[in-house]
Amino acid sequence: MEYKQTNDEKPTSSKDGLHISNRHLVSQKEDILYHFDLGTSTHDFVAMFGDIKFVCVGGSRWRMKAFSQHMAEMLGLGNATDDIPNICEGTDRYNMYKVGPVLAVSHGMGIPSISIMLHELIKLLYHAKCFDVTAIRIGTSGGIGVEPGSVVITRTSLDASFKPYFEMNVLGKTMIHSTQLHTCLGQELLKCSKEINEFPTLIADTMCTSDFYEGQARLDGAFCTYTEEEKMEYLQSAHAAGVRNIEMESSVFAAMCIRSGMKGAVVCVCLLDRLKGDQITSSHQVLNDYQIRPQKLVTCFIKKQLKKALEPQNLSNRV
Amino acid sequence: MEYKQTNDEKPTSSKDGLHISNRHLVSQKEDILYHFDLGTSTHDFVAMFGDIKFVCVGGSRWRMKAFSQHMAEMLGLGNATDDIPNICEGTDRYNMYKVGPVLAVSHGMGIPSISIMLHELIKLLYHAKCFDVTAIRIGTSGGIGVEPGSVVITRTSLDASFKPYFEMNVLGKTMIHSTQLHTCLGQELLKCSKEINEFPTLIADTMCTSDFYEGQARLDGAFCTYTEEEKMEYLQSAHAAGVRNIEMESSVFAAMCIRSGMKGAVVCVCLLDRLKGDQITSSHQVLNDYQIRPQKLVTCFIKKQLKKALEPQNLSNRV
Repeated sequence: MEYKQTNDEKPTSSKDGLHISNRHLVSQKEDILYHFDLGTSTHDFVAMFGDIKFVCVGGSRWRMKAFSQHMAEMLGLGNATDDIPNICEGTDRYNMYKVGPVLAVSHGMGIPSISIMLHELIKLLYHAKCFDVTAIRIGTSGGIGVEPGSVVITRTSLDASFKPYFEMNVLGKTMIHSTQLHTCLGQELLKCSKEINEFPTLIADTMCTSDFYEGQARLDGAFCTYTEEEKMEYLQSAHAAGVRNIEMESSVFAAMCIRSGMKGAVVCVCLLDRLKGDQITSSHQVLNDYQIRPQKLVTCFIKKQLKKALEPQNLSNRV
Repeated sequence: MEYKQTNDEKPTSSKDGLHISNRHLVSQKEDILYHFDLGTSTHDFVAMFGDIKFVCVGGSRWRMKAFSQHMAEMLGLGNATDDIPNICEGTDRYNMYKVGPVLAVSHGMGIPSISIMLHELIKLLYHAKCFDVTAIRIGTSGGIGVEPGSVVITRTSLDASFKPYFEMNVLGKTMIHSTQLHTCLGQELLKCSKEINEFPTLIADTMCTSDFYEGQARLDGAFCTYTEEEKMEYLQSAHAAGVRNIEMESSVFAAMCIRSGMKGAVVCVCLLDRLKGDQITSSHQVLNDYQIRPQKLVTCFIKKQLKKALEPQNLSNRV
């Protein structure tokens, strides 16, 4: 087993800022982003995506469409009821919507699914010569010792053994990447939450698992090899390690943001408190209200950033 | 680190045959299958699903709909152009279609995504009192040393280090499950392929990875920390270990079939030969033709099984 730290990599910067670390890609004539059904020979990436400054990603394609419509209204670029075309309409793997400088992309569930999307997204932004890009995952999660409806901004993503890194198998060897999210970005998002003042928000560690049932110590999967006492002991240990919510994508998201030079944040609402149960029994209306909270927070943040960029003293750094 | 073999489990059989191994579930009044938007209090599972004998799963929701339409025509239950309603229309996580005794369900990409689906699917079949269920994954894959368009029926699913089992983290401990697919079922499927006689089909080992780019030694991801020589050495080692194709779901699929008592098969077409390249550059038409091959094979198998079940000497075991 061989360990390799992220900072061993020697990133190849595109001349405009986004890092990639792949000299093979630079010499490749054409790049087909298979799971987006987009390619550098068939699409003009600079024209289509060159102005992107914010990428918001989430598991559900319906939620990402609703988010882009909400964003359009909030940025004065349309009404929330306007249809926004899906840029990846040639495939059913991911959906993608663009609203001004904001790109919204769905990523499905789990580390492998978001990892494929992020590889192709980072290549897309690289080919489009984007720079100073902020990436935010908006999602749902199970809380640990927090009120349902609370929003958790992730400090560090921990694995199922509470270790603060992401392990992956490359050519049969284990590689390790840091999973710390961007501190200042997290603080800015927390400030927005205070301004909105509608729901509890906290910065804390998030546990990222590879399974929703046994992997998150649920008692209600098809299989369960442990007792309720063992479940509670495990969740209490997670709580003691600083974990306040559990989801399934934050670790590789954090790792790939760091590797590509994007500022990254993970903002998830808690649908339930896992110390009190496993099944998600709230009504659709309550769950919908919860799911809108990360969107509200991120929309507020992006509006503020765009306003700030237009202030005279910042125009040289304009977004 | 603690290892636990599948055969340590003491399955709780439903009185009609399908295994679950969760005494908590048996005592639970209501069961909400959150990612299907179905529940035992709101839906009559026995009436809706009691006659299911075959479950076919695949990553793409479009492909699973097309498969169910093809199946309807082949079983004389409709035309291939008829619309078939999506049973999970209340959610965008998975799509589900039913055609007579055949259930077709999409599962997204990667082990975590299919694992959530399978937990809820196995519970669904258990609540519906199904028995003698055969589960087949039909998918796409990258070949190793086989012609593009070849269909691989998986013997055993190997991990990225070529080990023949599935590792998962449960309560912070590593658990291990067997990943051998059903031998007789694989042979039956191979026989069908010989009868169809339209495309090469083989039984071989399949490697199951957690990433499509670095995890499969591709040179065209956003990151690549190895040389072309190291990539080729790894793929050649996989070939020497018996691997003929790579995909991202077979290991947990095999493990959960064994654990639940379903006969399981994985039938994937190879879209390219990874020893010759990484990008999927074939035309849409060629790729579509390839993707239909596992469907053809499985449809032929199911038709034969249903015909066999109606023969007089088998009517006591009728499906």
